[in-house]
Amino acid sequence: MPILESELIRQIRRRADRSSGPVRIGIGDDCAVIRPRGGEDIVVTTDFSIEGVHFRRDWHPPESVGHRCLARALSDIAAMGAQPMACFLSLALAKSTPQKWVDGFLRGFLKLAERYSCTLAGGDTSSSLSGIVADVMVLGSLPSGKAVLRSGAKVGDTVYVTGSLGGAAAGLQRLQEQKVPQPARKSLRGMTGSQHFFPEPRIAMGEFLRQNKLAHAMIDISDGLSTDLNHVCEESRVGAMINSTLLPIAKHATLEHALHGGEDYELLFTASPKAKVPVEMAGVPITEIGWVTRGRGVYITDLTSKPKRLRPRGWEHFRKS
Amino acid sequence: MPILESELIRQIRRRADRSSGPVRIGIGDDCAVIRPRGGEDIVVTTDFSIEGVHFRRDWHPPESVGHRCLARALSDIAAMGAQPMACFLSLALAKSTPQKWVDGFLRGFLKLAERYSCTLAGGDTSSSLSGIVADVMVLGSLPSGKAVLRSGAKVGDTVYVTGSLGGAAAGLQRLQEQKVPQPARKSLRGMTGSQHFFPEPRIAMGEFLRQNKLAHAMIDISDGLSTDLNHVCEESRVGAMINSTLLPIAKHATLEHALHGGEDYELLFTASPKAKVPVEMAGVPITEIGWVTRGRGVYITDLTSKPKRLRPRGWEHFRKS
Repeated sequence: MPILESELIRQIRRRADRSSGPVRIGIGDDCAVIRPRGGEDIVVTTDFSIEGVHFRRDWHPPESVGHRCLARALSDIAAMGAQPMACFLSLALAKSTPQKWVDGFLRGFLKLAERYSCTLAGGDTSSSLSGIVADVMVLGSLPSGKAVLRSGAKVGDTVYVTGSLGGAAAGLQRLQEQKVPQPARKSLRGMTGSQHFFPEPRIAMGEFLRQNKLAHAMIDISDGLSTDLNHVCEESRVGAMINSTLLPIAKHATLEHALHGGEDYELLFTASPKAKVPVEMAGVPITEIGWVTRGRGVYITDLTSKPKRLRPRGWEHFRKS
Repeated sequence: MPILESELIRQIRRRADRSSGPVRIGIGDDCAVIRPRGGEDIVVTTDFSIEGVHFRRDWHPPESVGHRCLARALSDIAAMGAQPMACFLSLALAKSTPQKWVDGFLRGFLKLAERYSCTLAGGDTSSSLSGIVADVMVLGSLPSGKAVLRSGAKVGDTVYVTGSLGGAAAGLQRLQEQKVPQPARKSLRGMTGSQHFFPEPRIAMGEFLRQNKLAHAMIDISDGLSTDLNHVCEESRVGAMINSTLLPIAKHATLEHALHGGEDYELLFTASPKAKVPVEMAGVPITEIGWVTRGRGVYITDLTSKPKRLRPRGWEHFRKS
């Protein structure tokens, strides 16, 4: 680490907005001070991004690491139907982390923060004995009592997903198989696997679905469809039947990627079969993939063979393998 | 790590309050949902606790690590004059972390959280390739616009500190010199160095000083008096003169410990010389240690030799040594 902590904080402080909108006091005091609008609830999420677990420096350019660690948290805000308000970045760096890496990381992070008017209002810095650790917290807001929860799915609802599934996992697999070198920065957005490097949180879609009272239950697909749909069913005490022939599988991805690959950061929601759910928003498709059923458990059918149980097989830390 | 992430989350969820007071939705959805009271501001802080940097498993019992990582963040809430509302715990564990360690950590964390009615409302879990990493976020609340900032010190103010200084640093030095083995759990509170193992955040004092409009500026002493007083002076664009003969030095601690040792988590504040500041609260002394001066820079005098510049020499990550 080429600079002192105090200098790192000064650099971040210079590049972050001081105070804007609800953020009354940003970086530089013991706490940030945020003024909520009357009649609004605050939603809060935190997400770890750990070198060697969530990213690798030889695979991910620093801009992608900065983008992804904030996108993960923004995606949780989208899944409540909320608007981002402020973010906080805790960043631990090994002494050997090059300043250039830190600059790229902050560039990726702050660019995404700015796009969603999400003021960087605080955080913490530390040295790390081994790899880089980022922990990102985002605060969002929405009208009181209107958060879209995982627990609201009703028997008979239609199950929808936004965008396409499996793209991030397919991109990750290509990295694992070393089929692609670390991409040059400029070509990143266009390439296959950009869903892996620069996933887009579905903030506007989440808010639209909440405002128009379309979604009964909602979650973002961070751990994989199989895991996240099971979360919704458990919290709602219902089951689901998924039609695999309807799944919007991403280009270059397989059914396995779409079912169990995490980090797509699309939204999964359930809505009344009578709800007027648009088929796309701003070019992003919204696809029906199945129904909410009575009883427990998620099943999948290909319309040919017998329906099978779809068990959670998404991302699981601490797994033995 | 003996258990799966999903099981770890289930364990934490079982032991945490689900929803209480302002926490409408706690652990178990994409975000926590918090309902602020009308006319209140939210204050937010985050604090890293990293194995090998902030604690060592051979020095600190797990209860102390859990306690300290929350106490650090609560101390920031105290320094604004706010009341804690909810906390969030991001916890990364090496696969080899014993379940017993996790249990002890959570016991220390949750006991302190309960004491301050600070609901554990969310967080994140992850595996870690090397040591244990905890990142703690706390949200607090206070009446709108009433936060006590670092920037409010006025020329002529008296400078005060709560409690005694240097105790944590003295405890740490004893650990470094291996003069004390890892203490048995039951004897921890009574022993020398308990300020190091179980620091007490000064929540009630911070709130009292804010409610009674006594403190013009306030900070918690986490990095050491020399560093934190310099922060207040920089943000307030003033200087200070400290009288070393007045410093409330902790038992077994030296002047050096009191000036530059961090992690005491006492409050430092400035108040008008006419303010009726109590000399103690609930058995904790409040001590005058100097004055706020015109011009920049912090000076220290022992009333005998010429005043010297007191430069920030507290805790600094990324320092080369």
